[in-house]
Amino acid sequence: MRATLGLDLGGTKIAAGVLTDDGLKGYFERPTPQTGDGDAVARAIAEAGREAVRQSGLAVAVAGVGTPGPLDFAEGVVRFAPNIPGLVDYPLRERLEDWLGMRVILENDANAAALAEHHFGAAQGAKHSLYVTVSTGIGGGVIINGRVHRGAYGQGGEVGHLTVVPGGPLCGCGRQGCLEAVASGRALERDASYAYGEPLSAEALFVRFHDGEAKAVSLVEGAARHIGVALASLQKVLDPEVIVLGGGVVLGGGEDFVAAIRRAYEEHLRGWKAAPIRTARLGRSVGVIGAALAAEYC
Amino acid sequence: MRATLGLDLGGTKIAAGVLTDDGLKGYFERPTPQTGDGDAVARAIAEAGREAVRQSGLAVAVAGVGTPGPLDFAEGVVRFAPNIPGLVDYPLRERLEDWLGMRVILENDANAAALAEHHFGAAQGAKHSLYVTVSTGIGGGVIINGRVHRGAYGQGGEVGHLTVVPGGPLCGCGRQGCLEAVASGRALERDASYAYGEPLSAEALFVRFHDGEAKAVSLVEGAARHIGVALASLQKVLDPEVIVLGGGVVLGGGEDFVAAIRRAYEEHLRGWKAAPIRTARLGRSVGVIGAALAAEYC
Repeated sequence: MRATLGLDLGGTKIAAGVLTDDGLKGYFERPTPQTGDGDAVARAIAEAGREAVRQSGLAVAVAGVGTPGPLDFAEGVVRFAPNIPGLVDYPLRERLEDWLGMRVILENDANAAALAEHHFGAAQGAKHSLYVTVSTGIGGGVIINGRVHRGAYGQGGEVGHLTVVPGGPLCGCGRQGCLEAVASGRALERDASYAYGEPLSAEALFVRFHDGEAKAVSLVEGAARHIGVALASLQKVLDPEVIVLGGGVVLGGGEDFVAAIRRAYEEHLRGWKAAPIRTARLGRSVGVIGAALAAEYC
Repeated sequence: MRATLGLDLGGTKIAAGVLTDDGLKGYFERPTPQTGDGDAVARAIAEAGREAVRQSGLAVAVAGVGTPGPLDFAEGVVRFAPNIPGLVDYPLRERLEDWLGMRVILENDANAAALAEHHFGAAQGAKHSLYVTVSTGIGGGVIINGRVHRGAYGQGGEVGHLTVVPGGPLCGCGRQGCLEAVASGRALERDASYAYGEPLSAEALFVRFHDGEAKAVSLVEGAARHIGVALASLQKVLDPEVIVLGGGVVLGGGEDFVAAIRRAYEEHLRGWKAAPIRTARLGRSVGVIGAALAAEYC
């Protein structure tokens, strides 16, 4: 592998590093500008990229950038990014190519994470894998033959928007009963705040869940069940060799949450073949590694 | 393309033909032996194959065989075939290679049909497509970059077993609420017979549906709605460029049924990108063409 610059744009931080055969060099993070201005965000990404290259001391000719999605890959433009509004329809790839002086490949951040876990993390050695991240929302990435399956319209891997409860709660996307609307961190907060009659964060809910508090167990296991059933459905269509779970809710819920997902998944696959469900391994640098890999594998 | 033998094994007929650049040569059909004996079925397939090659007058070195699935591709064995019980775990590929004297590739019949419609039918020109067949059961095939996505465990494209109604009717596969259990021909017959209080075939139901009879419209549109919602879910994960619908229920339901599927699909994709939904084009030779293509593209 050549040395490849990886850049990961999040709502609160930009992470940067240079991926080489010996691992990640010159990794660091900086805050994302909160001005809501596309130029300010792009400039901050470019500066972070130049700084990572300088720190690595390596010659770099190509950069991958993980961004919130979905993306218009042909145009190099973000189509939807509620946390970074100034980015939508901003000519991000074009500006970054000018300012970094190298070829730039954009990738959806969940796709980038899927690629990183596939090649260097929990799905290493698999041919096909599915990565699902459960945090404020639910996203994912489909890896087929070692590459991201973006799909025909750039929507590949948007597992958070499978309809799992017909007529269920309204999702941020405007449709009813999406997996995200019944099993994400925000959905858990909505249901916990209703059930307890007071505002409750996902973190506070998980404290009660780990204490074995009945309502919290019921809420968290309910979310896990929806995720497990959706994964069982996907096993029959995508049939990944390994499923990798990441994101803050999976971290917060810990092994008990993953075990509840696995139970529902296996129950809905009796008579079928189940894949191992593993938790993500790469930690906070997953986005930078994945962004660099996206540039390698595009 | 070389001349390739295509063989399509169904519960009632075996079809055979030789696929060339000029189309299908020497196509014919014969009944499937109903003895429940693997050897008898394999012998009938081999005879049909030899006859098609003879009629075509071409030199053929490889055969593709479409069979009910799922298959164990590594072993060349059918794992599940309720309509041809003697076939399960029978060394089909090995015997056919002996008796035909050529290399034989097995493929799931829905995957084969998907491949045929992708390359020569309703999805021609697409990079990725999804084929769904609605008949007695519901099956499908996922085509990515022009090839069948079999998946890691040979379950790719089994769209009939997406869980679409949690806790819903029991499916033949033993799980509850599968798409097949709420929208297949057999599910329609179950629901129609209950609603009308007398045994009713899918064909008879479609006659009443086309007459605009209220219960029949409600039953058929309900099935169409489940299919449309499932296709919308799959659009967000697989993101095919084109969706192709085939099978007896789609034929029987006609354009009104497909229009109802499309309405539910588009309603559940508002804010997302929808793919065109088209009906299958290849007719009864689809299985033979697909089987031959499976041998070409394996």
